[in-house]
Amino acid sequence: MQARSTETRNRILNVSLELFSRNGYEATGVAEICLAAGVSKGAFYHHFPTKQAIFLELLHTWLGMLDEHMKAARQEAKNVPQALMNMGGLMQMVFQEASGRLPMFLEFWTQASHDPLVWQAIIAPYQRYQVYFKSLIETGIAEGSLEVDDPETAARALVAMGVGLLLMGVLEGQDERSAQLPLQSIKILLDGLAKGK
Amino acid sequence: MQARSTETRNRILNVSLELFSRNGYEATGVAEICLAAGVSKGAFYHHFPTKQAIFLELLHTWLGMLDEHMKAARQEAKNVPQALMNMGGLMQMVFQEASGRLPMFLEFWTQASHDPLVWQAIIAPYQRYQVYFKSLIETGIAEGSLEVDDPETAARALVAMGVGLLLMGVLEGQDERSAQLPLQSIKILLDGLAKGK
Repeated sequence: MQARSTETRNRILNVSLELFSRNGYEATGVAEICLAAGVSKGAFYHHFPTKQAIFLELLHTWLGMLDEHMKAARQEAKNVPQALMNMGGLMQMVFQEASGRLPMFLEFWTQASHDPLVWQAIIAPYQRYQVYFKSLIETGIAEGSLEVDDPETAARALVAMGVGLLLMGVLEGQDERSAQLPLQSIKILLDGLAKGK
Repeated sequence: MQARSTETRNRILNVSLELFSRNGYEATGVAEICLAAGVSKGAFYHHFPTKQAIFLELLHTWLGMLDEHMKAARQEAKNVPQALMNMGGLMQMVFQEASGRLPMFLEFWTQASHDPLVWQAIIAPYQRYQVYFKSLIETGIAEGSLEVDDPETAARALVAMGVGLLLMGVLEGQDERSAQLPLQSIKILLDGLAKGK
């Protein structure tokens, strides 16, 4: 019974992602999701109070996956600059995941901008990344691989660069040239931050 | 007659910006704009074929103003790194202009993402900035103030950083600390690019 419930929940999530991406967030109704997922409205509302809750769950799952990849990128690196380069390499995966989903995100953000609670849920991860990179940079200073006066500013610059690269990747689409940009940009930032080891 | 026509056109633009910012782009209708601006629908359509044309005109005007400021920032600088720092200083002004207008932009982008022609009009300036910064960096190389292997990549990294800083500034709002971030971030990038003059 538990397994079937999980399976239903996942089917609702997968179908919603597909419909949001194809037809837009606003244009997709709960009735349509239920029909495509083959579940009753009762079953739907058992799992999700609102359509918004689905979007937040999809975002949460995706960020959780990104966290796992970042953790691996950190563990495989012998020092912090290398960890940051490995994380730059993850951008490629992020672009592929995000490809074709910009309209859906824009639409959701537009709706969220009228709702302070949802807005908070959206910007929370990005504040979390600032804290994470600050701590990573402090580790780099401690291990002697980075020389940085102000770790918080360096972390904010890194996050700004990441956000900008993400947006550019989604706007421009991906070709061979742009695929290199995240790594190259992080290299320039690191050259600006690093001791030159 | 010419003066009065220009005055009407400007009034439509100003009223539209105010209504788009306050109530959203989609929620604002042409009828409402006409009422608030005190013009007939005939007069409106004499100046603008669509509501979309108003938004693109507002964007165009704003980018034109930014171009003027960037030109001044370039002329006041004794070399390219200083020009880039001056341009970082302009971010503050950009944030103030953009403040409270994120929902309007998100909404417009959402609509534009369904319309390839409008989409092109939106990403054109950003491609123009890549060309501009590439040329500026080449000038820096020629004058000996920058040492960069690949000016195009450096330009794209700069634009990515600019886009990221803009988005962060708009998301976070502005305080004293974040006001410093654009200059600090550009400084780190320059340290990564510059000869250290």
